[in-house]
Amino acid sequence: MKSDEFYLALAFKLARRGKLTTAPNPNVGCVIIRDHRVVGEGYHVRAGEPHAEIHALRMAGAMAYGATAYITLEPCNHYGHTPPCTEALIAAGISRVVAAMLDPNPKVNGRGLYRLQQANIEVRHSIMLQDAEMINKGFLKRMRTGLPWIRVKLATSLDGRTAMASGESSWITSNQARQDVQRFRAESDAILSTSATVLADNPTLNVRWLSLPADIQCLCKEENIRQPIKVIIDSANRVNPFHRIIKSNGTTWLARIQPDDKIWPRWVEQIQLPVLSRQDILRIDLMALMILLGKRHINSVWVEAGANLAGSLLLAGLVDELILYMSPKLLGDKARPLCLLPGLERLSDALNCKLLNIRQVGPDIRICLKLIYSLSGS
Amino acid sequence: MKSDEFYLALAFKLARRGKLTTAPNPNVGCVIIRDHRVVGEGYHVRAGEPHAEIHALRMAGAMAYGATAYITLEPCNHYGHTPPCTEALIAAGISRVVAAMLDPNPKVNGRGLYRLQQANIEVRHSIMLQDAEMINKGFLKRMRTGLPWIRVKLATSLDGRTAMASGESSWITSNQARQDVQRFRAESDAILSTSATVLADNPTLNVRWLSLPADIQCLCKEENIRQPIKVIIDSANRVNPFHRIIKSNGTTWLARIQPDDKIWPRWVEQIQLPVLSRQDILRIDLMALMILLGKRHINSVWVEAGANLAGSLLLAGLVDELILYMSPKLLGDKARPLCLLPGLERLSDALNCKLLNIRQVGPDIRICLKLIYSLSGS
Repeated sequence: MKSDEFYLALAFKLARRGKLTTAPNPNVGCVIIRDHRVVGEGYHVRAGEPHAEIHALRMAGAMAYGATAYITLEPCNHYGHTPPCTEALIAAGISRVVAAMLDPNPKVNGRGLYRLQQANIEVRHSIMLQDAEMINKGFLKRMRTGLPWIRVKLATSLDGRTAMASGESSWITSNQARQDVQRFRAESDAILSTSATVLADNPTLNVRWLSLPADIQCLCKEENIRQPIKVIIDSANRVNPFHRIIKSNGTTWLARIQPDDKIWPRWVEQIQLPVLSRQDILRIDLMALMILLGKRHINSVWVEAGANLAGSLLLAGLVDELILYMSPKLLGDKARPLCLLPGLERLSDALNCKLLNIRQVGPDIRICLKLIYSLSGS
Repeated sequence: MKSDEFYLALAFKLARRGKLTTAPNPNVGCVIIRDHRVVGEGYHVRAGEPHAEIHALRMAGAMAYGATAYITLEPCNHYGHTPPCTEALIAAGISRVVAAMLDPNPKVNGRGLYRLQQANIEVRHSIMLQDAEMINKGFLKRMRTGLPWIRVKLATSLDGRTAMASGESSWITSNQARQDVQRFRAESDAILSTSATVLADNPTLNVRWLSLPADIQCLCKEENIRQPIKVIIDSANRVNPFHRIIKSNGTTWLARIQPDDKIWPRWVEQIQLPVLSRQDILRIDLMALMILLGKRHINSVWVEAGANLAGSLLLAGLVDELILYMSPKLLGDKARPLCLLPGLERLSDALNCKLLNIRQVGPDIRICLKLIYSLSGS
């Protein structure tokens, strides 16, 4: 007899297939087991379409009667785009439900499992919590805090430099590293950058399907690939309709202090945001921006910008993960720094991280880190 | 039937057992195979003692007759501390010799194998060259160039900083990282540092047997552990007999422009070196220092110093490997830089490396890199 963890692991494997498409909904997988056999499998494919449980129940048909359903997240008990999964599980005659974690969505949060227990279904939950947290980092953070999961990407030399003093920098890291970035873009709901980056590099910030690794390509056909929403911080209204990011025909939000009256394509929205002034420089309030993104159901933000925005996000305590692409070069002490962190005087002020993983990407090194913000300064 | 590579791999495994003790001699291993059976095994343990071939021949005894000897380096054909191994192989009746590489020692360099061929022994050589290069990096470089293999260790934050602007820095990296350093010290013939480091930290720069990893402890008992020679660059005669490095009773060479007439313990030698002046600062000529270390049979130098010496060695083209211990912290753009590299203006001036390996060491990251010096500036 296999353990609950064995079957839940199958459900997690299914859940991951939806990772490019379910946003703003969570990734969920479900397997239905009767007499030690898999009789139903399903995963949530796309918001608005049936949940994982429904796909699995449909496949199981009459075999669902008396079976156990393994689900990576507590089933919903409310009417959203689709009817509640709890009712479908009850109607099918499921006798036991194992859910990896409770859904922190305030509309659910235990009520789904409570409903099942009321219907005499045996319930087990909160096992494999770490997998459950990992697979829906963005959704879970947004449900708990209202904020998206924020990953900052930076490219650097070994000695923490991004460009020569002159500004000369183009492509410090390799082609392979730039391809690797495509994966993170594809997995994100939004890409955040700045007018400084738009003016300097004139990027499109698109996901290029052909540059995606094979495991990601398998999950999504080229024509279905989702382009993350592009969010550009542009406090001085320096982006204009002729920049490539505007012309490239993907939803773009310009985060501005004061919208302008230029004629913008229909996929561009100017969003007015509050201001934090520091040292006589007007800056957009980054926390307010992130709250807004959360309200607009953005689960995950991928930040591709420079030393300035990276530093501001880090100092504001907003960064969840830092993804460093490190080129095996030394640029010297006169070259430009990785991130601007004004006010760091003592070693106890330093920003601390936890190493998540390191790997070689072409000739470069990729280091993924989780930021550890402590409540006190030391 | 096993391949030549199979048996040579056994010989390499033996050779590695000597890695803490053979200096200034190379690490060499030997297995003797007759009728597909290992009849003799040996490795070079210590300079002045028998070579690998002799140990293996003694073990094989009469079984060596008609056998094949697998040796990780061409056997010697000259009288050093011990008689030539070629003669012992011939006398024992060995019929075939497989040597992983020719010995670039000008006293050997093909003449060993030539002597064997003259004695009607079948010879194969130059297979598994990469292993052969790896195991004796220092010896081979010294034989070819007169210079030791130079590894520079630096500890840094993620953003390439070694200390706060105030100088506050103590132990940026973890205890595990500092323990890991012990391995590199133990494998080196000399540790190079500067008076600045001595004055700032007052270190002993000793190998602490108890801090060594188990695989290194297995190779050498505590009482036999070799203390690398300590070489301190001290152009302004700032080190005095009361510093811990002097009092800690290990051979210490003070690299000075002008020796002083203080009373030094017998294990301390003042070495007068030529000067390179740059920007009105008198500096010891690092190339001259390395040539001197090579002449004194130092195969490998482990550099533990600051941004200044690291930068000077890098710019002088003297560094073979860079070992970076990276703490998962951000210290900010005002903090002190990893290495001083004056004169790097363009991206094409950047110093390039090849990634050798990355691993996690406690909470930190260790990155080993090979310097790639190109002949042209771009």
